[in-house]
Amino acid sequence: MNKPGLLIVISGPSGTGKGTVCKALLDRNDFWISVSSTTRRPRVGEVNGESYYFLSKEEFLDKISENDFLEYAEVYGNYYGTPKSKVIEMIESGEDVILEIDIQGALKVKENYPNGVFIFILPPSMEELKKRITNRGTETEESLMTRFKCAYKEINYLSKYNYAVVNDEVEDAVNKIESIILAEKCRVDRIKSTILDSKEGLIHEQLYD
Amino acid sequence: MNKPGLLIVISGPSGTGKGTVCKALLDRNDFWISVSSTTRRPRVGEVNGESYYFLSKEEFLDKISENDFLEYAEVYGNYYGTPKSKVIEMIESGEDVILEIDIQGALKVKENYPNGVFIFILPPSMEELKKRITNRGTETEESLMTRFKCAYKEINYLSKYNYAVVNDEVEDAVNKIESIILAEKCRVDRIKSTILDSKEGLIHEQLYD
Repeated sequence: MNKPGLLIVISGPSGTGKGTVCKALLDRNDFWISVSSTTRRPRVGEVNGESYYFLSKEEFLDKISENDFLEYAEVYGNYYGTPKSKVIEMIESGEDVILEIDIQGALKVKENYPNGVFIFILPPSMEELKKRITNRGTETEESLMTRFKCAYKEINYLSKYNYAVVNDEVEDAVNKIESIILAEKCRVDRIKSTILDSKEGLIHEQLYD
Repeated sequence: MNKPGLLIVISGPSGTGKGTVCKALLDRNDFWISVSSTTRRPRVGEVNGESYYFLSKEEFLDKISENDFLEYAEVYGNYYGTPKSKVIEMIESGEDVILEIDIQGALKVKENYPNGVFIFILPPSMEELKKRITNRGTETEESLMTRFKCAYKEINYLSKYNYAVVNDEVEDAVNKIESIILAEKCRVDRIKSTILDSKEGLIHEQLYD
């Protein structure tokens, strides 16, 4: 039997750069990233199973009733969700699965999969966060302040997470996430039964690498 | 005020190579290693404050009554102990302190300093452990089996530790310990008050680096 992989949830307020951090993390590591399901129409260039799994509303509702989402939400009439069975299958086959998700989604995932590793990406300062939100340049002053205040409030959810990583330099943030993943694989809570049950044959292969 | 450092306790049964791992860890990092106190006489070449702090029995007993040891033990009529005030002083000044210690000592340290990071060094296999103990070549077959059985039993204390690191390749074990230390500095449990109390001025310097 394979050693199970980890579910690594990377989350944080918008403007903290969690997308950039995830991309850099995946460039350097052989993790499997979870693809969301949605009922919204594909945009030009979006590929089913890459950008999203595109489902009909009926298919999506079926999966809800089958309890096949780690989390889902309805946004402006469209559903978005994290498929459960695929993620669990990958973890059980030994893959580490990355899930990049907003805070509301992450908290729901935690209810359904408390054994995940929940990492909160922080901006280097509130001033920097404001600058990053402003620099997107697509928003009015009012909606900008709303987003900023929302991000500011969301930082209070930090205490529901296991780790906080400041995204000051992307490479530095990725180093920290890689260390967190390696450290989690050494946590006695995760591996003690493997070691103690098979102490006679205690061999390296029975532990996480 | 400095961010406090970590107390990193590296421990495990004899023969697992924790001394070698610690030496390699200190070669690569600027950690402060705790020096034990003892009442035994210095051997030729041993320097006070480097090998040990050499104390008289009276001095040692005074320190016991002042509660100035993180742990101590009497072995064949000599006392050995881990000085508390020096370790706490270094941690408070922001230094990460390494403590290499046997299992009984580590468990006592945990009682006095539960906030430490307790790392258990494991042999790659029980067969390899036996080989390592045998290769020291200084023991009779009987004392060898006693040591081996003791090490075998001691692995049960694993569950009192936070992390287990298999010492298969020293460099690999050191990488894991470095990751554990970096990850621990990102743990929300350790840093959330720093972040949430000073959210207004949330800046990188207020977190662990």
